[in-house]
Amino acid sequence: MTENRDDALNKDDALGRVRVVLSHTSHPGNIGAAARAMKTMGLSDLRLINPLHFPDDMAVAMSSGATDVLGAAQVSDTMEQALTGAVVVAGCTARARGLSHAWLTAREGAERLMMHAAHEPVALVFGTEMSGLSNAELDLCQLLIHIPANPRCSSLNLAAAVQVLAYELRQTLTSPVIEQAQPKPLARHEEMERFYHDLELALIEIDFLNPLMPRRLMVRLRRLFARAQPEREEFDMLMGILKQIRKTAAIGQNVSGEK
Amino acid sequence: MTENRDDALNKDDALGRVRVVLSHTSHPGNIGAAARAMKTMGLSDLRLINPLHFPDDMAVAMSSGATDVLGAAQVSDTMEQALTGAVVVAGCTARARGLSHAWLTAREGAERLMMHAAHEPVALVFGTEMSGLSNAELDLCQLLIHIPANPRCSSLNLAAAVQVLAYELRQTLTSPVIEQAQPKPLARHEEMERFYHDLELALIEIDFLNPLMPRRLMVRLRRLFARAQPEREEFDMLMGILKQIRKTAAIGQNVSGEK
Repeated sequence: MTENRDDALNKDDALGRVRVVLSHTSHPGNIGAAARAMKTMGLSDLRLINPLHFPDDMAVAMSSGATDVLGAAQVSDTMEQALTGAVVVAGCTARARGLSHAWLTAREGAERLMMHAAHEPVALVFGTEMSGLSNAELDLCQLLIHIPANPRCSSLNLAAAVQVLAYELRQTLTSPVIEQAQPKPLARHEEMERFYHDLELALIEIDFLNPLMPRRLMVRLRRLFARAQPEREEFDMLMGILKQIRKTAAIGQNVSGEK
Repeated sequence: MTENRDDALNKDDALGRVRVVLSHTSHPGNIGAAARAMKTMGLSDLRLINPLHFPDDMAVAMSSGATDVLGAAQVSDTMEQALTGAVVVAGCTARARGLSHAWLTAREGAERLMMHAAHEPVALVFGTEMSGLSNAELDLCQLLIHIPANPRCSSLNLAAAVQVLAYELRQTLTSPVIEQAQPKPLARHEEMERFYHDLELALIEIDFLNPLMPRRLMVRLRRLFARAQPEREEFDMLMGILKQIRKTAAIGQNVSGEK
């Protein structure tokens, strides 16, 4: 248990070691939106290579709460500077270019990057909005990552691509056992049996269920309610409803009896 | 091999049966960006509930190549209209609200939706940029989907959230976990609404529900049955039971009247 926790903490640190490098971005709004996308997934290290307009009000506006990420962004003239210290450099591209690169899906790529980011900085590089990464930039990458998409329209908006990759990076943290909301107590087996018992009586009393020809009615109702997994409080509510149905039926019954 | 191919084709059709419903969107740019996000992942059915500005030039600009998705978007006044025909309605929300809803991650939710979308329409609902889904809208959802995120900054931009969900929906096409048993047809949204309507009347007629002080009874019953996701046949059975309860109550009522 302790080990898992430590592992989770290391991995959280690892997100801080993933640099997002945006090369020659044209629209400052995209830089802001990328910063927000990063922050929602716990990334913080943004590098900008020769952005067309930066700093810019539009970037701030689109960053929403991520002005810290935006404010800490390092701007440089060359990709070399942005990559210094990184042990793995992955380029994000919509199409395979050059067969020599490893060509991973977003999910595979995120796993690969995070494996290394546990110990050392890694970089994820995005090209311009219009034409993506240049050949010179591709040459600096060790692997290429693509987001599997509609073949007839495969190019995501820059910030959307950052969002998907950041999302996949974060998903590597999650073991299936995480912060679930504390579940409410469920009805116990014997309580649900009592419910089914009273439900059957009620259905007989309102003349819906013929006890001489029950068919599979109760089995079907059991399956329906079993899927819902009633909570204790819901069980109380259901029992209250049954009681009231049976009371109503009894009134009708007395009348019939009287007649 | 042929079988896998057919399966892939069916699943591609399934993407066309996933409706993206945007409720009361403030910024038309977000609608356009959402349309593009959808198209990159092969989704096409966009529904808008009372958008603040639509149609709008900003929406067109942000949709890039997805003007077809944008142009085919259906605008309606109520969520009811947008949901008609859907067998599963999932709400996208950053935080758990009410523990009684099924609460799935984006990945789990995408798998659940696509399982049903193989045969029938499903809906994925997004609330406003500022406050998300209203409680009334949540009540119409059978399950809630969240995008696991940085707990200190968990709210994605609207279009970014659409992008991540659309991405996860598409990734199910290649997911090794397929081959589900053929699910039985589920009750449709409007059928379940009819059920809740008649259920409420029945509870009033048996004096369980005081219409002057309804508290949260119907909301709680909605969540219970939503979790069960009744099949069409089960819906028929439930309606039959309600009819019989109401008939029984009417007999009692006549008696009281006579007295």
